[in-house]
Amino acid sequence: MKIVLIGAGNLATNLGKALRHAGHDIVQVFSRTAESADALAHILQCPSTTCLSDVSLDADVCILSVKDSALADIASQVLPGREHMLFLHTAGSMPMDVFAAGRRGVFYPMQTFSKSREVDFRCIPCFVEASSADDLECVRRLASTVSDRVYNLTSDQRKYLHVAAVFCCNFVNHCYAQTESLLKEHDIPFDVMLPLIDETAEKVHVLSPREAQTGPAVRWDENVIARHESMLQGTALDIYHLMSHAIHEMQKK
Amino acid sequence: MKIVLIGAGNLATNLGKALRHAGHDIVQVFSRTAESADALAHILQCPSTTCLSDVSLDADVCILSVKDSALADIASQVLPGREHMLFLHTAGSMPMDVFAAGRRGVFYPMQTFSKSREVDFRCIPCFVEASSADDLECVRRLASTVSDRVYNLTSDQRKYLHVAAVFCCNFVNHCYAQTESLLKEHDIPFDVMLPLIDETAEKVHVLSPREAQTGPAVRWDENVIARHESMLQGTALDIYHLMSHAIHEMQKK
Repeated sequence: MKIVLIGAGNLATNLGKALRHAGHDIVQVFSRTAESADALAHILQCPSTTCLSDVSLDADVCILSVKDSALADIASQVLPGREHMLFLHTAGSMPMDVFAAGRRGVFYPMQTFSKSREVDFRCIPCFVEASSADDLECVRRLASTVSDRVYNLTSDQRKYLHVAAVFCCNFVNHCYAQTESLLKEHDIPFDVMLPLIDETAEKVHVLSPREAQTGPAVRWDENVIARHESMLQGTALDIYHLMSHAIHEMQKK
Repeated sequence: MKIVLIGAGNLATNLGKALRHAGHDIVQVFSRTAESADALAHILQCPSTTCLSDVSLDADVCILSVKDSALADIASQVLPGREHMLFLHTAGSMPMDVFAAGRRGVFYPMQTFSKSREVDFRCIPCFVEASSADDLECVRRLASTVSDRVYNLTSDQRKYLHVAAVFCCNFVNHCYAQTESLLKEHDIPFDVMLPLIDETAEKVHVLSPREAQTGPAVRWDENVIARHESMLQGTALDIYHLMSHAIHEMQKK
C-alpha cells in the first residue's frame, strides 16, 4: 500500500521501519520539526515535509502517530481534500472518532518503543478498529503484513487496555528505576537484579499474577515490612506502603 | 557436604533440590508440620522430623530457611550441642548475627520461588557472608556448587538489596495483578500483555530504567493522565496517581 506517515516519534519510527520492511511504499513523512522529519525520512528513504498542506494526495492510507493531545487538531487539518484515503491513528487511549469524518480507523501496536532499540514487530499485539467493514478488512490486512497478532477491539475496550498497559509497562519500569536508585546508594550494581526481573516476568506466562505473588506483603510479615519502611523515605516509602497494602488487600479477596 | 535443612517452604524446596542435584548429602529435613516435612523429605529422599531436638548431630552445615520472624527462636533452640556445624540462613532481610553465637553465615539466593515452578539455580545470584574467613570460604564453595553467580555482601548491604528486590519483584508482580484485574473487567485476556511485559523486562538489560521509561507520565501528558484517572477507582487509582507523579518527579531530576 502507499502510506503517508504523520509523526516521527518512537512509535512512528518503529512502525515505519516495519511497514517498509513488509514492502509497503512509504510515500512521505511529516513532522513539525525538519530535524525529526528528515531523520525518519532518511531511515525510510522517502521525502519529508513539515507542512500539513503539502501532505501527499497520492496515498491509500494516512497513519497519524502523534501526541494524543495534537491528534484531533492535526486530523482536522489534513483530512480536507484527502477523503479518498483511509485515516488511521496509533494511539491506545484515543477513540476512533477523534477523526470527525471520512474513512477512519485505529491501528494500535501495543509495545514500549525506544528509538535506539529494535523490536520484533511480528510479536507485537496490534489492536485494530475501523468505521466500515471494508476498512476494517483493509486495516487488518495492513496490520497482518507486520504482525502475527492482530485483534479487533472497540474504542471503549482499547482505553482500558491502554491504562492496563501503563500498569504493566510504565509502572513496572518505575519499580525497576526505584530499585536501581536504592542499589546505587549502597554500591550494588543493578545487573544483579536481572535474573529476578526476568523470572518475575516469565512466571506470569504460566501462573496468574495473583498465584505468582511472593514476599513479605503477601505473607503479611509485619516485622519485615516495618524494617523495610524504616529504611526508606520520600516517594520510595510512599510506594512501598501503598503497594504492600494493595498486595495484602488483593490476597484477602 | 552433609546438610540439614530446617524449613520446607518455597525457598527450602528449591534450594534442597539444587543441593541434592549438585551431589550433596541432605541428611534430614525439619518442618513444624509433618505434612510439609514429609513432602520435602519425599522429594529429597531423606528422613524428616518435626522436633528440633531430633535434628541430626551428624552434619557439616545446617541451613535455616524459615520465616524471618521465627529465625532467631529456631536458631537458639537448634544451636546447643551442634557448635561443630556451620549455621547458615537464607533470609535477605535478616543480619548474620541473628545467630547469637557459633559458626555462622548467610546464603541468600535472590529469586522469587514458587513450589510449582522449576528455576535454573545456576543463574540465581547468591549473596554470601560468614563470621570467619574459613567459613566464608566454606559457604562460597557450597554456593558455587549450585550457582554461577556468588557474591560477598555484608548484612547491611544485603538489607538494602532485599528491599530493592521487593520493588522489582513483588511490586512489579502487583502491577501485573492490577493489569489482569482491569483487563478481566473488560473481557480482554491477560496474555495479550505478555509481549509488553517481556519487552519491558528485556529493555533494562541494555538501557537504564530511567532511559527506558515511556508513556504518559514521563511525557507528563495531563490529558491522558486525567482520562486514565477518571476510569479507575480505589487502590488502582491510588497506585496510578502515586506512580505517575513518581515517574514525573524522577524524570525532572
